[in-house]
Amino acid sequence: MDYVYIKDVSKYVGKEVTIKGWLYNKRSSGKIYFLLLRDGTGIIQSVAAKGEIPDEDYELCDKITQESSMIVTGVIREDSRSPGGYELSLQHIEVVQISEPYPITPKKHGISFLMDNRHLWLRSKKQNAILRIRAEVINAVRDFFNKEGFILVDTPILTPCSVEGTTTLFETDYFGRKAYLTQSGQLYNEATCMALGKVYCFGPAFRAEKSKTRRHIIEFWQVEPEIAYAELKDVMDCAEKLIVYIVARVLEKRKDDLFAIERDIQPLENVTSPFPRITYTEAVKILHQKDEHFEWGGDFGAPQETIISESFDRPVHITHFPARIKPFYMKRPPEDEKLALGVDVLAPEGYGEIVGGGQREDNLEILEKRLKEDNLPKKDFEWYLDLRRYGSVPHGGFGLGIERTITWLCGIQHIRESIPFPRLLDRIYP
Amino acid sequence: MDYVYIKDVSKYVGKEVTIKGWLYNKRSSGKIYFLLLRDGTGIIQSVAAKGEIPDEDYELCDKITQESSMIVTGVIREDSRSPGGYELSLQHIEVVQISEPYPITPKKHGISFLMDNRHLWLRSKKQNAILRIRAEVINAVRDFFNKEGFILVDTPILTPCSVEGTTTLFETDYFGRKAYLTQSGQLYNEATCMALGKVYCFGPAFRAEKSKTRRHIIEFWQVEPEIAYAELKDVMDCAEKLIVYIVARVLEKRKDDLFAIERDIQPLENVTSPFPRITYTEAVKILHQKDEHFEWGGDFGAPQETIISESFDRPVHITHFPARIKPFYMKRPPEDEKLALGVDVLAPEGYGEIVGGGQREDNLEILEKRLKEDNLPKKDFEWYLDLRRYGSVPHGGFGLGIERTITWLCGIQHIRESIPFPRLLDRIYP
Repeated sequence: MDYVYIKDVSKYVGKEVTIKGWLYNKRSSGKIYFLLLRDGTGIIQSVAAKGEIPDEDYELCDKITQESSMIVTGVIREDSRSPGGYELSLQHIEVVQISEPYPITPKKHGISFLMDNRHLWLRSKKQNAILRIRAEVINAVRDFFNKEGFILVDTPILTPCSVEGTTTLFETDYFGRKAYLTQSGQLYNEATCMALGKVYCFGPAFRAEKSKTRRHIIEFWQVEPEIAYAELKDVMDCAEKLIVYIVARVLEKRKDDLFAIERDIQPLENVTSPFPRITYTEAVKILHQKDEHFEWGGDFGAPQETIISESFDRPVHITHFPARIKPFYMKRPPEDEKLALGVDVLAPEGYGEIVGGGQREDNLEILEKRLKEDNLPKKDFEWYLDLRRYGSVPHGGFGLGIERTITWLCGIQHIRESIPFPRLLDRIYP
Repeated sequence: MDYVYIKDVSKYVGKEVTIKGWLYNKRSSGKIYFLLLRDGTGIIQSVAAKGEIPDEDYELCDKITQESSMIVTGVIREDSRSPGGYELSLQHIEVVQISEPYPITPKKHGISFLMDNRHLWLRSKKQNAILRIRAEVINAVRDFFNKEGFILVDTPILTPCSVEGTTTLFETDYFGRKAYLTQSGQLYNEATCMALGKVYCFGPAFRAEKSKTRRHIIEFWQVEPEIAYAELKDVMDCAEKLIVYIVARVLEKRKDDLFAIERDIQPLENVTSPFPRITYTEAVKILHQKDEHFEWGGDFGAPQETIISESFDRPVHITHFPARIKPFYMKRPPEDEKLALGVDVLAPEGYGEIVGGGQREDNLEILEKRLKEDNLPKKDFEWYLDLRRYGSVPHGGFGLGIERTITWLCGIQHIRESIPFPRLLDRIYP
């Protein structure tokens, strides 16, 4: 190996190593330069003492600017005073490129400026940590479903028709006909779970919603499992197990990053089974107890979700919603046709919905009736109805929003920092 | 656990189990029914002998049709004559739904009919096996990059501008401005690798190409790694290591599925390092030796790729292409400006290109010159040019096409079977 990554320096104490990175920050004191070097895997303090490195290298320390790229050689020393616990005694510095004056300095910048420079902002410590947590969340999700015997089955992004109206859909011309960007792979998952038993899809989805809140994002990623021979309770158990798994994994593997972003981890350590399980009607009672004006039958908005979620010390399941606020494919309990066998899971600390799902209607006649009630064109759903013609079984699933989950886990205020290049109502650059 | 999956029956020999599935096929002989039951994880032969199960259950055997959903209870027996090696002695049958006459019968169907019924066709043995191999390939790719220290960084699907012209781009209205569906996350990867060292993105990409060949698909998935402080050779080494890893993993974990689709695995067992590495100029010589008319300077099409790929017993790297057939961002060797430091990897057995990549131009002035030469609007690339202003380093990466890789590994004729719901020039249903 011709160079080492900073995350691995603990294996090289007392040894000479080469590191390839960028200057994160520097200061000098007398005849010593302290260079904070980053390489994407970590940050290490490097010390250049006059007389201990060649004079021309020492002079470089004066010239190099923030974010200059450089290859350095030196000896790794354990040093408890150093950030990270290790230090590099420099022997040689090779500058790859002297950076032009870097626009993002340690001073505070406005959010619009930082978003315009998102391609550079990602190099900062906090954004770096969030990206690593994001990668961990996604890997945890995949490992969970693979371990549980689910088969990954990608569902299409370009779809021929709109399930829930076209107002929030992005439309494109598909060789002379209209196509839409997917909002959910669920209907396709229902087909593939009949082929493979337990499946999940995991990809980007799109909502052309004119909302500008800290919870909304136009392009987002979601994982959607679907289980054949499953009822509402199985769906809830699966969602709960998944959330517990993700949180434990991030706590196990990304504690350093959580500390870097100053996340209080105590509320996360609380996220263990069982989660409270309440009905929509019970949730409405909570709202009334907290003096929130809300009428039974309506959909919870962000303010209501915040109140409910703050009433529990861990995620909470809400089930049995009014059927008319839920989509046509949701199964209704035979004993009460006004309700739908859906479940939302709200994250605690006021973060709100991260999971939505439920049991699907598996009866052909009922589903045909619902399509008619919702004025949906039956011909577009013939293939979907086929799943009820040929070996229909009880089944269900859910979607977990990745960015909302990351926003909660990181304890950040706005969803825009949870994805590398956020797409917002007023932003599609860079 | 209240029921078991067929893939796990070997753990239950001699025990009573419940299986939830669908009737794949049936036959009767005297007073015995042989029911082939599938549950998405496998197929098991279940035996219902008159007198050994309740009469009403025995009569059900006559009534149940292909793909009827059913829950059965019985005892698992080891039986070498049975497909899969195990058999279920039935004790009880509960029919969930009697299927309507199933459109896909064991007789041969035309491809257009099968594609119209893709949502059902996926239940067949061969398609089931391909989907499982697909999931394995994708998991192998992710495990490989995670293990190698790459950080997953999702790049956006909706992008504000077109890198290589708009003719093959899907366009959509993004709140009053134009946006395009991504063809590659590379430019964004170049930004994030400067932040994190080694990154990869893995998601869907789109090419609105009016091609109707067995290698083209409109919506496809690709993985794209990008490495800071890397040169062409590092990129090639990484691609080779990845391909070797994927093939070994599929051979290790999905041999049953490869057998199910009758894939000759000998050519796959050959896929070990080192791969041959030739230049474009050497590849042209091969074409000439095989009497293929081809002029130096042109791009290889499917016929040329087939000839070159059939000349080797494993994947082959091709490097040093004519610069004018490669995009503006590809670095050119200082000693010969007519060449580009790109690499394509062709899969053997005539399958052709599965990897395309190379080293990126890291010099600001040269990149500005190339943009001008290609008449690309500089303002759209300001953020990309920033990566050369602030700590530029040599870097490179590649893209591996998932569907092309699966098509090759499965040894299938047409790419349309490598993805659950293919989007083709004339197909966006179901």
